[in-house]
Amino acid sequence: MAYGKKIKKILYGGDYNPEQWPEEVWQEDVRLMKKAHINMVTLNVFSWAALQPDEDVYDFEKLDKIMELMRSEGFLVCLATSTGAHPAWMARRHPDILRTDAEGRKRRFGGRHNSCPNSPTYRHYAAKLAGKLAERYRDYDNIVAWHISNEFGGECYCENCERAFREWLKKKYGTVENMNRAFYTAFWGHTFYDWDEVVPPNFLSEHFRSQSGEERTMFQGISLDYRRFNSDSMLECFCLERDAIRRVMPQVPVTTNLMGFYKPLDYQKWAKEMDFVSWDSYPHPEDSPAEVALNHDLMRGIGGQDSFVLMEQTPSVTNWHPYNRLKRPGEMRLLSYQAAAHGADAIQFFQIRRTMGACEKFHGAVIDHAGREDTRVFREITQLGAELETLQDVFLEGRTPSEVGILFDWDNWWAVEYSAGPSVRMKYLDAVKDYYTAAFSMNVPVDIIGAEDALTPYKVVIAPLLYMCKSGVAERIRSFVENGGIFITTYFSGIVDEHDLVYPGGYPGPLRDVLGIWVEENDALPDGEENCFVYEGAQYPAAVLCDLMHLCGAEALASYGRDFYQGTPVITKNTLGSGCAYYVGTRSDAAFYRHFLKNIFRDAGVQPPVTVPEGVEAAVRGNDRNNVLFLLNHTGAQTAFAAGGAWENLLTGETYQAGQTLVLEKNGVLVLKNGG
Amino acid sequence: MAYGKKIKKILYGGDYNPEQWPEEVWQEDVRLMKKAHINMVTLNVFSWAALQPDEDVYDFEKLDKIMELMRSEGFLVCLATSTGAHPAWMARRHPDILRTDAEGRKRRFGGRHNSCPNSPTYRHYAAKLAGKLAERYRDYDNIVAWHISNEFGGECYCENCERAFREWLKKKYGTVENMNRAFYTAFWGHTFYDWDEVVPPNFLSEHFRSQSGEERTMFQGISLDYRRFNSDSMLECFCLERDAIRRVMPQVPVTTNLMGFYKPLDYQKWAKEMDFVSWDSYPHPEDSPAEVALNHDLMRGIGGQDSFVLMEQTPSVTNWHPYNRLKRPGEMRLLSYQAAAHGADAIQFFQIRRTMGACEKFHGAVIDHAGREDTRVFREITQLGAELETLQDVFLEGRTPSEVGILFDWDNWWAVEYSAGPSVRMKYLDAVKDYYTAAFSMNVPVDIIGAEDALTPYKVVIAPLLYMCKSGVAERIRSFVENGGIFITTYFSGIVDEHDLVYPGGYPGPLRDVLGIWVEENDALPDGEENCFVYEGAQYPAAVLCDLMHLCGAEALASYGRDFYQGTPVITKNTLGSGCAYYVGTRSDAAFYRHFLKNIFRDAGVQPPVTVPEGVEAAVRGNDRNNVLFLLNHTGAQTAFAAGGAWENLLTGETYQAGQTLVLEKNGVLVLKNGG
Amino acid sequence: MAYGKKIKKILYGGDYNPEQWPEEVWQEDVRLMKKAHINMVTLNVFSWAALQPDEDVYDFEKLDKIMELMRSEGFLVCLATSTGAHPAWMARRHPDILRTDAEGRKRRFGGRHNSCPNSPTYRHYAAKLAGKLAERYRDYDNIVAWHISNEFGGECYCENCERAFREWLKKKYGTVENMNRAFYTAFWGHTFYDWDEVVPPNFLSEHFRSQSGEERTMFQGISLDYRRFNSDSMLECFCLERDAIRRVMPQVPVTTNLMGFYKPLDYQKWAKEMDFVSWDSYPHPEDSPAEVALNHDLMRGIGGQDSFVLMEQTPSVTNWHPYNRLKRPGEMRLLSYQAAAHGADAIQFFQIRRTMGACEKFHGAVIDHAGREDTRVFREITQLGAELETLQDVFLEGRTPSEVGILFDWDNWWAVEYSAGPSVRMKYLDAVKDYYTAAFSMNVPVDIIGAEDALTPYKVVIAPLLYMCKSGVAERIRSFVENGGIFITTYFSGIVDEHDLVYPGGYPGPLRDVLGIWVEENDALPDGEENCFVYEGAQYPAAVLCDLMHLCGAEALASYGRDFYQGTPVITKNTLGSGCAYYVGTRSDAAFYRHFLKNIFRDAGVQPPVTVPEGVEAAVRGNDRNNVLFLLNHTGAQTAFAAGGAWENLLTGETYQAGQTLVLEKNGVLVLKNGG
Repeated sequence: MAYGKKIKKILYGGDYNPEQWPEEVWQEDVRLMKKAHINMVTLNVFSWAALQPDEDVYDFEKLDKIMELMRSEGFLVCLATSTGAHPAWMARRHPDILRTDAEGRKRRFGGRHNSCPNSPTYRHYAAKLAGKLAERYRDYDNIVAWHISNEFGGECYCENCERAFREWLKKKYGTVENMNRAFYTAFWGHTFYDWDEVVPPNFLSEHFRSQSGEERTMFQGISLDYRRFNSDSMLECFCLERDAIRRVMPQVPVTTNLMGFYKPLDYQKWAKEMDFVSWDSYPHPEDSPAEVALNHDLMRGIGGQDSFVLMEQTPSVTNWHPYNRLKRPGEMRLLSYQAAAHGADAIQFFQIRRTMGACEKFHGAVIDHAGREDTRVFREITQLGAELETLQDVFLEGRTPSEVGILFDWDNWWAVEYSAGPSVRMKYLDAVKDYYTAAFSMNVPVDIIGAEDALTPYKVVIAPLLYMCKSGVAERIRSFVENGGIFITTYFSGIVDEHDLVYPGGYPGPLRDVLGIWVEENDALPDGEENCFVYEGAQYPAAVLCDLMHLCGAEALASYGRDFYQGTPVITKNTLGSGCAYYVGTRSDAAFYRHFLKNIFRDAGVQPPVTVPEGVEAAVRGNDRNNVLFLLNHTGAQTAFAAGGAWENLLTGETYQAGQTLVLEKNGVLVLKNGG
Repeated sequence: MAYGKKIKKILYGGDYNPEQWPEEVWQEDVRLMKKAHINMVTLNVFSWAALQPDEDVYDFEKLDKIMELMRSEGFLVCLATSTGAHPAWMARRHPDILRTDAEGRKRRFGGRHNSCPNSPTYRHYAAKLAGKLAERYRDYDNIVAWHISNEFGGECYCENCERAFREWLKKKYGTVENMNRAFYTAFWGHTFYDWDEVVPPNFLSEHFRSQSGEERTMFQGISLDYRRFNSDSMLECFCLERDAIRRVMPQVPVTTNLMGFYKPLDYQKWAKEMDFVSWDSYPHPEDSPAEVALNHDLMRGIGGQDSFVLMEQTPSVTNWHPYNRLKRPGEMRLLSYQAAAHGADAIQFFQIRRTMGACEKFHGAVIDHAGREDTRVFREITQLGAELETLQDVFLEGRTPSEVGILFDWDNWWAVEYSAGPSVRMKYLDAVKDYYTAAFSMNVPVDIIGAEDALTPYKVVIAPLLYMCKSGVAERIRSFVENGGIFITTYFSGIVDEHDLVYPGGYPGPLRDVLGIWVEENDALPDGEENCFVYEGAQYPAAVLCDLMHLCGAEALASYGRDFYQGTPVITKNTLGSGCAYYVGTRSDAAFYRHFLKNIFRDAGVQPPVTVPEGVEAAVRGNDRNNVLFLLNHTGAQTAFAAGGAWENLLTGETYQAGQTLVLEKNGVLVLKNGG
Repeated sequence: MAYGKKIKKILYGGDYNPEQWPEEVWQEDVRLMKKAHINMVTLNVFSWAALQPDEDVYDFEKLDKIMELMRSEGFLVCLATSTGAHPAWMARRHPDILRTDAEGRKRRFGGRHNSCPNSPTYRHYAAKLAGKLAERYRDYDNIVAWHISNEFGGECYCENCERAFREWLKKKYGTVENMNRAFYTAFWGHTFYDWDEVVPPNFLSEHFRSQSGEERTMFQGISLDYRRFNSDSMLECFCLERDAIRRVMPQVPVTTNLMGFYKPLDYQKWAKEMDFVSWDSYPHPEDSPAEVALNHDLMRGIGGQDSFVLMEQTPSVTNWHPYNRLKRPGEMRLLSYQAAAHGADAIQFFQIRRTMGACEKFHGAVIDHAGREDTRVFREITQLGAELETLQDVFLEGRTPSEVGILFDWDNWWAVEYSAGPSVRMKYLDAVKDYYTAAFSMNVPVDIIGAEDALTPYKVVIAPLLYMCKSGVAERIRSFVENGGIFITTYFSGIVDEHDLVYPGGYPGPLRDVLGIWVEENDALPDGEENCFVYEGAQYPAAVLCDLMHLCGAEALASYGRDFYQGTPVITKNTLGSGCAYYVGTRSDAAFYRHFLKNIFRDAGVQPPVTVPEGVEAAVRGNDRNNVLFLLNHTGAQTAFAAGGAWENLLTGETYQAGQTLVLEKNGVLVLKNGG
């Protein structure tokens, strides 16, 4: 639902920091924003020091002026609580708000996202400020949402956190004995006799760098719990501020800006506490269109497949990559429509006016250092603004009609990458991208679902590298398959429970019967070394990990081509009830995943919305009013193809007949609806 | 002597951790171990927390049960003292047992091998536990050895260590003046006036990272002494436990599991305090057969060339390499016989039953997570067990008839790699492997000897990169050569004394007259750059370091082919008394070392035991009963060749006539004795 | 003026540490030094611990003997104050002298250059020692200079520095508000309300590692100020010692040994406080002749283009590079004459006699470990000594007749490389070397000038990557051009003021009108990716950063060849008054810079002193007596060419006629003057 049902247009705007500028500049900003068709601003993201100059002193004077200006000029406002960075005076007087890092170093004042989430000072003052803001601006009906803090993240290992972690464990396990079992402390004699013997797992205790530099732990159980605890601690901070606001303005939705595949925070748990999902999309220049789309789909998925807000993107350039490439002409527009195609109901920039100092001064903005409106970037922003105005609410609250679900689980991500063995080359995101990218290349829409989500809405469910099979998951998979679903999983799945304790009896543990196999061994291959297999006449590589398995009911679709396990199964299919379950026992290449999923989708009757040339993305969003088709040209060149039906171009009003040649410019976009 | 003269069979078994399992599993374990022909177990490696739940509370109940079960089921026991990891409660109550790392960070509870070796708490409680265990199980005559702690290692820089280091220095040097001379503190005005001014050399004081990442020191003297002190401190811990046991059970030998070329501990000094040597062999997947053999030979060498125990190896896979490759079919058997061929009297695994949690759960075991006996690994273990049973004591206590000694010295290792200049590319182990690998490829048996060991047993002594020439060594080399020995050393040798102080008068210092040369300069070459020389008509590369030398009695066997020192000697030979001494003034390639040593061995009359194809290892062990010949197929393929004599196959009873074709399967092994 | 006008010969010698040796060695040293034509020594560089064994105890006995010996044997002395490393007892009793590193770790005793520059203890005792030395040796008229401490460097973040930094800021900014503006603290709510809220910017506060490992900051303003403060703090230490000496011996010049392009210290500010510049030249084996020359020219430039002292170079080899290559025969001589050609009036070595212990024992020396005079290195030193004796004062105080200035500014160096975006590949020294190397390859002499230096002496001024345009600089550039100068600058110039705050209105800020362009965007290219352009018919690459610009009066000399900005200007020329200004909007390759500068020099009428083959350096120094031409053969082979005029060979007395063939041996040198 994003900004809420009463918003009947696509919001367009971004972070605005007038407090960095003299007031005479504000009028010019208003003029330029209007020229660019901007209709909303996010305010007050980093002003704690200004709003609260001292323990009991608050100063809203400048913010009052800004709020008043925005209201009078007709801008909607997403109002931030400013708690993403604490004031310097607070750090000096209350060192408990400063974090301690994973090497045990107490940090000093500096940076942002710098507050210990278990600091009583931080919690007290943050919630108090949120409440005060809500009270002060409760009557501003142009506030469309509250934005808590900013990009929550990082981790802390201070004494406050240590104490809170012990309490968290006590609540979770009840007895030290239960905790010992879950942590498997009989190993290496790590048995705890008292909660107070627990120390946070970090580089001073259980963590270390692997030979190849990855952070690893000697006790996965406690390390997983610390990740959960750290995520929960920050989520509590979010909730404290949210509740302080809700008490005053219960009608306005509350969010915070997430960051896609951000490992430290379990966003699936967070989204349950947020009124809607918003996120900041900063793809790396080398990310593929599929990788960008996957992030959008994850963000849509955590919110129950509801629409979301693109809270931040750069209009042109970032500043924090090793090299910061300009978005090419049309690229920002293309990425904006891609966001919309995957569920965004608002398109926002960081930021409106470029800062003149500090580390983000070379980050792109709507209004550049030159302060001119005759820039390429401003022109492109203006064009997009006009288009979005044209589109009004045509796709708002539209949903993606996915018949395929890919399971993604933060606990599993953490667990796979804390695992000591079989290979540091085994990365959870790689496995997820393997399958997602194949589906994306065929324009088959995918929902990213969590381990607790229902499988029943889907024809096909893919759970790549489902190393950790949490309680209930195997049962739901079995039932899904028995009732006709197609399930796919991969190497090194079904290994451990939610405590990272191995399921006895052989791999893939609770999935053995669904898959009809027993995996006896896992062979890890070094970089540059591959096995191979033949699938339907084509040879594909097997890399990273090769599972050595026995058929226990399943049939082999392909076998290893080399080494001592030559001829043993690598891909299997097991029929169960009216469905079937596939196991892909190794990591292969993009050509294989596309070949394999093509067959799966054919068997399942899953189809793309239209047929378009390679490199053109076709995505549908449907609401109770329209089914909107987005065609997005990622090919890097002009492309022409025959229209697959009769369509109306929502931006130009043109209509196309089936068979008529459509032309997509380089980075071009068509927003269509059926008929014409 | 390994487990002692009363053991008349090859022991076969490994680490067993029944305390991680419910008792009902124990019976199944016993059944499976017996099926696999396992006859011994190592118990109690990590149970300190279980055995001592509190300051004055000890609880042996579960261990009693396990010990009783093992005795009643007929298993021999290697009993560990459990002090390899301290209990959590002890860390909380006695922080002095926690180590401080090389960056000055006090560690917290976590990991293993985590106790400060100079902690009074640790020393007190560790020795007390060892004594209590000895008293409790003194009547178990199935105890074949005591196993102190586990894989001693690491280092500590805490305040306890600082104080102990000062005492250690005081004892070594007597006066501050002597210490100043040894440390060369006149340099950079580092003169100490009081023992208490000494601080441990680490990254907060004298150590730093070189431009290419290596740890280096500004004062080699103090850094070498800290390495010696740290090794001695841990050795004292070993001795304290050993003595606590000896007071009660003087008849049972005491060991601890070493780790081959483990840099921090001077095992040559350690072995003098151990009743027998045992070690854990975990070759990296990329290690060559020669590198594995070299480790065995080192471990045999530190024990005075006596047989040793292979305390741990994995049956299939490790978990801590970046990628963990399965041992191929036959590979574990091949490596086990290789260990035996180089001096092992027992073959043991880590571990019997695979753990279900924590960081070693993906390390291979006799009994896998599946708990099944129909696995490839279990079958191979069973086969090997049966074979070892067949062999009985045929090679026990057998010695390797080596006529070649390679000198290896921990002090020299430390010193070479603390050296600031001439090249970080100059690595001691590389130089040792160069010569060892050449001899290994010709199946010439080699003893690895220490700087204090006698040279007289050998025809040829090689001292690669003998940078540090400790007192007495040059004299013994001279006498060895004068009496007919062949001595070989290399570039950058004879440079410093045991304090890392340069010998005046020109390189190679005290070896100048034996070698008949003067090395004027050392030219370090960058990666990828080489000089060259011609040796007996073949051209070889010169890399890493090129010594520029003058003949002072020696003759040149080869000269540099390029650069301004073209035509000056690179390999020299000096005749002295009835022997001769060679100097190889650069690092070359494997072909050269083989060519060169072939000539040396020919001149010395050193021969391999038999002639076999390339890639087949032939090694002999002889005791007062048999001369056993091991043929080990490392070629990676089946190999056939003519028997060089009449042999009896000790595993099958077959006999072979000279000239008869022998077939070695891939990874195959033949255990033979003369006659047939 | 270097050692002063009364020195009428080239000083030749180096660091001498007799305190490391027994007195009987001293006589041999004297003999060898005289043999090598050495006429001066630098004494007492690291003897603080010896000179001050306790709080109030000083012991000059050994130094007295050394000073007396040097005087009686006729050696001139550069006397060091010994404060480059503090005594161990001082570190133990006064921990405030120990530094705290950028990660907040308090260091312990060890290393050198280890004193906190703001430690009251250090300042007190260092100045006191300097004063005592001056008083004791005031009557030694063979002291030609005082040498304060040694290679000042590094940085400290301790509590003393924190307090001093706040005072430094208070003095600079007057009010917290001014400081907030300069630091742009409105960003991220970093507003300070009190000086005491300021903490040093380091890895515990504002600094972090970029994805590619570079140190970066979140607030450039405070980080720049900390660099300035740290440089100033050490400079204060220098001045304190200098003043203590001047009070006693005002007639003797005071220096300290600098290190060329040493980033932490703003040598342009330092040189103002030094009586003459001296520096230590340790080129990396891979440095080009141009890079070595550039360092000399920088060192000459900071001293107002006066002559300088080559305080240290190695006669043969260093010890601290990853691999330490020997200087080839003639290479030390070639480098020594190159130093002289670029302004050195003295040639000195580190060191006279090689140390026998600690980390510099493998650093080359005049007298090697062998202690022999029949070494290659000693012979070369002796030859050079004889030559320098021959030359007497022929080029002393000679100046380089440069018509080209390259602007180099420490603040700009710091700022460019603290910048978050657009590319970590953008490195200031690379940009400077691009232009310098091109000029060097044409033997066009260049002065390296600072941001405050006059531009009027030059025909051409190049300011590569002038990111930070400090106050007054743009004005001086404009006036320079208007009056007929040729000015060149590059991509990403004119962006920020001295606080790293962006100039509003568009890039290149205050240089817009001089250059006649507006740079709208900057596109950063990844490694391996290039754009291109055609300049006078030849195609050249465009890499690292591509500025996208508009002409505002300038003309385009070349345009981009690819990408969406194909056809837009990349190199521009703007005529202003009687001069012109060029903008090179990207980084190209060596061929381009040479092509481009060839044209510039032609237009400006700038010429090399003579025409010589590629790879032969020709450099002139002129004093009121002679114009001396140095021809230096860097080609790596013998080279012959026709003399461009009538010359006299100052080393041999030979004369050459114009057109006569001159032969330069490999690494050869000719020192010539006009006529013959």
